[in-house]
Amino acid sequence: MKIGIITIGSELLNGLRMDTNAHWIAKNAILFGGEVISKTSILDKEEDIFIALDNFLKRNIEMIIITGGLGPTHDDITAKSLYKYFEDTPSLDISYWEKLKDRFIKKGYDVSNLNKSQALIPTRGDIIPNSKGTARGLYFKSNNAKIVAMPGVPNEMKSMMRNSVFPMIQKSSKISMHYKILRTTGIYESQLFNILSEHIDKYSNVNVAFLPSYLGVDIRISSTDKKSYSSLSETIQSKIGDYIFSEDNTPLEEVVAKTLIRNKITISTAESCTGGLISDRLTNVPGVSSVYIGGLVAYSNIQKINLLEVKEKTLLDHGAVSEKTAIEMAVGARKRFDSDIGISTTGIAGPDGGSPEKPIGLVYIGFSSKTISKSYKFEFNHDRVTNKMISSQVALNILRKNIAKLIK
Amino acid sequence: MKIGIITIGSELLNGLRMDTNAHWIAKNAILFGGEVISKTSILDKEEDIFIALDNFLKRNIEMIIITGGLGPTHDDITAKSLYKYFEDTPSLDISYWEKLKDRFIKKGYDVSNLNKSQALIPTRGDIIPNSKGTARGLYFKSNNAKIVAMPGVPNEMKSMMRNSVFPMIQKSSKISMHYKILRTTGIYESQLFNILSEHIDKYSNVNVAFLPSYLGVDIRISSTDKKSYSSLSETIQSKIGDYIFSEDNTPLEEVVAKTLIRNKITISTAESCTGGLISDRLTNVPGVSSVYIGGLVAYSNIQKINLLEVKEKTLLDHGAVSEKTAIEMAVGARKRFDSDIGISTTGIAGPDGGSPEKPIGLVYIGFSSKTISKSYKFEFNHDRVTNKMISSQVALNILRKNIAKLIK
Repeated sequence: MKIGIITIGSELLNGLRMDTNAHWIAKNAILFGGEVISKTSILDKEEDIFIALDNFLKRNIEMIIITGGLGPTHDDITAKSLYKYFEDTPSLDISYWEKLKDRFIKKGYDVSNLNKSQALIPTRGDIIPNSKGTARGLYFKSNNAKIVAMPGVPNEMKSMMRNSVFPMIQKSSKISMHYKILRTTGIYESQLFNILSEHIDKYSNVNVAFLPSYLGVDIRISSTDKKSYSSLSETIQSKIGDYIFSEDNTPLEEVVAKTLIRNKITISTAESCTGGLISDRLTNVPGVSSVYIGGLVAYSNIQKINLLEVKEKTLLDHGAVSEKTAIEMAVGARKRFDSDIGISTTGIAGPDGGSPEKPIGLVYIGFSSKTISKSYKFEFNHDRVTNKMISSQVALNILRKNIAKLIK
Repeated sequence: MKIGIITIGSELLNGLRMDTNAHWIAKNAILFGGEVISKTSILDKEEDIFIALDNFLKRNIEMIIITGGLGPTHDDITAKSLYKYFEDTPSLDISYWEKLKDRFIKKGYDVSNLNKSQALIPTRGDIIPNSKGTARGLYFKSNNAKIVAMPGVPNEMKSMMRNSVFPMIQKSSKISMHYKILRTTGIYESQLFNILSEHIDKYSNVNVAFLPSYLGVDIRISSTDKKSYSSLSETIQSKIGDYIFSEDNTPLEEVVAKTLIRNKITISTAESCTGGLISDRLTNVPGVSSVYIGGLVAYSNIQKINLLEVKEKTLLDHGAVSEKTAIEMAVGARKRFDSDIGISTTGIAGPDGGSPEKPIGLVYIGFSSKTISKSYKFEFNHDRVTNKMISSQVALNILRKNIAKLIK
């Protein structure tokens, strides 16, 4: 089903708000057989709404999804404009109006000032229920196109899409999409492509998309053909399984934390160049307090010596940014916090502090458990914040792989 | 100057990429007198490009800004389509072609396979230089509209906008916009509105926009009238000065870190519920290592006692989430790390761990310097990650205010 999206609101065009609604709709519509072929953002003006509708209805578009301008704080330009455009005379939905009045009286509002427009229903169209707010959506049909309009408030819009609009898309498109996102890290897009392209090429009816970011490459596999989809998914997973950390949208910190919780393995952190980002990410996961004992951000050598028992000789002979220091930090954290495993980072995040021998972006990551203590060397070439982010991702991936060995 | 934006690329319509380019252009165009009245994202198909151009050129639009489909990895659909649409026969720019070849030979590429399209220049239009990449932009004129096209790579597009397109907008709009963003935190949008609305109402020729987020409210003041702009800006700053932490786009952690660096005040952190987020944010600021001594993420009571010298009696009598614990943690950090000031957080981030006396979202923040040690109580009502984020923002704001008193 071919879809066009119209998002309405001056805040989307003056830089005050990023239009995240259209992105969310497009990303999810695919799963129900919907294909967004264009999206447009316009001002909350009747004329602009008319032009946008004209432009879409001229084309071979089967559904127009509109968000914005329907909420209680708006002057209902979207509803008014749609009634006019589709030559509809709405009537008052008295039972809904009573409900609305009750609701507002309970909140202590003066009902006499209340705008009745939220209780109107179209004569030639229909309403779309809104379980999260008072502004209901509108539905119209024009030639072969379905037109739906919803408030722009993201949680209201999303709930209405899930409950009403996605089912409409699925029914019309009459296809069932099989779909999966494999999240990988530790391998470049080009390497993945080299490994996988010959296999992907064999399945013309499966769509495979690569989405690279600094944290890794997400691979989206989708198809209406279940057999091809399953077969290619299995092949891809068998070829690059080591790099896949999640088959849904789970972030890496959650994968690591949940494995630790499930296996009752305790952990501590000793961070220098990542500055607390690893512990921040781990503590984003609910329930992590049962395994995350604590962490130290040891920015200075004195702290590395006093709190982590890094040897002064190590710092003198090898420097703070070195393999040996990283290992001693990880061991020190494990001992200081009495945890099963310890992870450490030491590096030069930039923009200052680099030298020919130890350039900006040089990072050592240390891992320590009762049976093994080792260090990994990396060179990243980004700005300070990105170097921190990548270092934390690599450290979490080192945790993931080493924990897998521990629990084998 | 009225502007329409066209962003090209299937990744913008299948949920793989959020369209951040159009947002950035819209936000910045305002400063040069540009007003984006509509933006649209389309697939990389000639027909769709033609339709989008037709739709904009029919309207009273003075500039069309196009991004995407011009990079070296694309099949140059944008350039080809524009040459065709504007009936232009491009010619080869031989000197640029020689430069391109040199560049690619140095990188070890096979030049015989190189596509010459990047070295073409329009006959009836012009090129837009690209100092960050090989794909130059295109410029055409049609009736009263200027049409510019650039690659979608954000840093290339931004540099071309700054160097070539924004100056064009400013020249055509013949106005000079005065503009400022005041970043506030610690006050709600509604409270700001109550304080400021009577003053804002007096200046019909100044635009004031409020942009609330969990981290605070940004206030954008803009006007073409310098006198009104200055006068209202001064009034606003005098009324809410205490809440303003920055008059440009500087984030709060940078304001705090730079004040510490400038005044040679050293700091340490003791985090429980924020889990390292405060130290992560502080260490995002280059140069902070001269004042940030270190931090401890003390998730368990044992660590609070052993490493921060929180009294066992305090934990027993008042609990880990209490005013007294927060103070003792801040004092403990200051002593442990031998820093001038210490900041601490202890709270219940959720989703578990709440009780009627100590609900989810209850957070205490402790501050300690040589002269004063105190604690602040808050109740936040969000999810775990948002509670952490707000807590870190509030802690940084407490630092900002207390440091201001210290250096007075």
